[in-house]
Amino acid sequence: MKQLRLSIIGFGTVGQGLAELLFGKEALLKQDYGLDVKLVSVANSRHGFIYRENGLDISMLLELAAARRPLTEHPGVSHWDNALEGLRATGGDVLAEATGTNLRDAEPGVSHIRTALSQGMHVVTANKGPAALYAQELFALAQAHGVQLRLESTVMAGTPVISTLREGMAGAQVQAMRGILNGTTNYILSAMAAGRDYTDVLTEAQAQGYAEADPTADVEGYDAVAKTLILAALVFGRSLRPEQVARQGITHITREQMQQAREQGKRIKLVASLRLLQEPAAGANTQTAPLEARVEPMALPENDPLARVDGVINAIAIQSDTLPEVTVIGPGAGRLQTGQGLLSDLIAIARK
Amino acid sequence: MKQLRLSIIGFGTVGQGLAELLFGKEALLKQDYGLDVKLVSVANSRHGFIYRENGLDISMLLELAAARRPLTEHPGVSHWDNALEGLRATGGDVLAEATGTNLRDAEPGVSHIRTALSQGMHVVTANKGPAALYAQELFALAQAHGVQLRLESTVMAGTPVISTLREGMAGAQVQAMRGILNGTTNYILSAMAAGRDYTDVLTEAQAQGYAEADPTADVEGYDAVAKTLILAALVFGRSLRPEQVARQGITHITREQMQQAREQGKRIKLVASLRLLQEPAAGANTQTAPLEARVEPMALPENDPLARVDGVINAIAIQSDTLPEVTVIGPGAGRLQTGQGLLSDLIAIARK
Repeated sequence: MKQLRLSIIGFGTVGQGLAELLFGKEALLKQDYGLDVKLVSVANSRHGFIYRENGLDISMLLELAAARRPLTEHPGVSHWDNALEGLRATGGDVLAEATGTNLRDAEPGVSHIRTALSQGMHVVTANKGPAALYAQELFALAQAHGVQLRLESTVMAGTPVISTLREGMAGAQVQAMRGILNGTTNYILSAMAAGRDYTDVLTEAQAQGYAEADPTADVEGYDAVAKTLILAALVFGRSLRPEQVARQGITHITREQMQQAREQGKRIKLVASLRLLQEPAAGANTQTAPLEARVEPMALPENDPLARVDGVINAIAIQSDTLPEVTVIGPGAGRLQTGQGLLSDLIAIARK
Repeated sequence: MKQLRLSIIGFGTVGQGLAELLFGKEALLKQDYGLDVKLVSVANSRHGFIYRENGLDISMLLELAAARRPLTEHPGVSHWDNALEGLRATGGDVLAEATGTNLRDAEPGVSHIRTALSQGMHVVTANKGPAALYAQELFALAQAHGVQLRLESTVMAGTPVISTLREGMAGAQVQAMRGILNGTTNYILSAMAAGRDYTDVLTEAQAQGYAEADPTADVEGYDAVAKTLILAALVFGRSLRPEQVARQGITHITREQMQQAREQGKRIKLVASLRLLQEPAAGANTQTAPLEARVEPMALPENDPLARVDGVINAIAIQSDTLPEVTVIGPGAGRLQTGQGLLSDLIAIARK
């Protein structure tokens, strides 16, 4: 039995989703994976960082969070106001970083991750900010300290995309990929394809929780850009800046354009794409060839595997030298779906 | 740099495909994966087993094979008539078992695999026979000897299906899966959907090499049954016998049935499915719930992610507790595509 002492920083939807899975799957993890995860610390921005040497009671934490009561009500815990200080003082084997995404400077997530890696903790994260802006630096830091940094949930939640690219397809040289990587815009475009207006659908998506009150990050393509940056770093080893991704959102798409596409047997999707502009020589390093990165609405023919991916479902199609095209379709968001990505990353860390 | 001494037994399409990838990607493997694969032995049924302590010249072996000349023409090799004897005498770190599939008794592959595992060698294989008939026994043998057995290429060639199920989705409890797992039948059904007759298409598929002279294993569903058995063992931990899979082939499907399905907005596909008949309790072992296994033509609605998978492309849709449906689409056969699965398995072994 391998024991991992886990710290979860960020105890909103994602952090709670992971905790819920760890609680519900405790027996499964022990039996099928020989893995005993002990949650020793949790932090959120409102109540600070709590730690208990012998482990925290996950169901009690979930109840406290659901009732919006302070996590410090958990008995027998030490408390720090500041998560970084608490993490430095207490440590553990793995940090699950689950604070909110900030695409400007990636804080506070990137500081949590740097601190954890520097003190020899593995890190799993669903936070797109650090992954989009600092992936290369953070992977180097992880390597320098002999620990792992895993990011499955930053792209398409727990749908296995990053593990597919880095492990499932290991040895294949990826030449291009195209993805529907944002659920909100795909939900809107799918409804528009059925004849509805952008504004109506956006309002409905906001009411259903599929779109935020300020939908800019989604509808202008910034969220898809962040995921494109993550994939550029993970697959092509490039540190692109957001401005290096040609970006166009969906706000100007009209019902008429959707209609016209439909008449031509096509579907308009917000497509994120990465493409090497020169084919690398067999076996050669792909890190020097020019890389094109784009996020833009595209009219896809109906036989394109991405064309029929509707609603909040996401998808990615990967072209490589040995596998002409592999497509992975699955959920791109959700509490347990995102928690699942953190869980599979935890298991991967335990296995290695 | 990690060095793996590799033996390839079976030097037909698949074995040569792996060798070609190892030759072409030697620099990439060293640079990106820190992996130095040294091919020390090769065997085929015509020329027996050859071994060279300091490694074989892969390009020379590929030339000899292409010219149908004896592999023993490679200079400086030791030779055994029998692959098992050669393997026992010489060993290595990893066996790539790539002899042809035999669904009756899995020989000679299963003997090669048993021998390798028993002498502490890891095994990667594309051979469906041992995986379909003896997976549980072979995994137990691998575990007993502290080595890995990896089977990516036995289902959908190098398209990452098994790694997705076992690693990318680790921690998720799979409840059901449905797949288009046979390229020949999907090619025939896709052409029939375009209005052609079964017999015509079969003849054409045979001419193009997509179907064998005796197409029974494909068109009667036996190949899909083998893959269903492999998935039952890997995902649900069950040793099913072929007779436990309800099987129906595609030979009785008429042009009229295809037409009728089309008029109803449906597509007929040969679908392999596995489904737990009781939902396991959260965290509970899934190995006791009854498991339904079927291979049969099904009329799928057009919005089913499997419905539009045409030609020799394969696909699998996986339902689990945390990810409602994940679909993986990709090539299901081919020299380099199958070699790719063996390569990713080799890299996984080197990483652990």
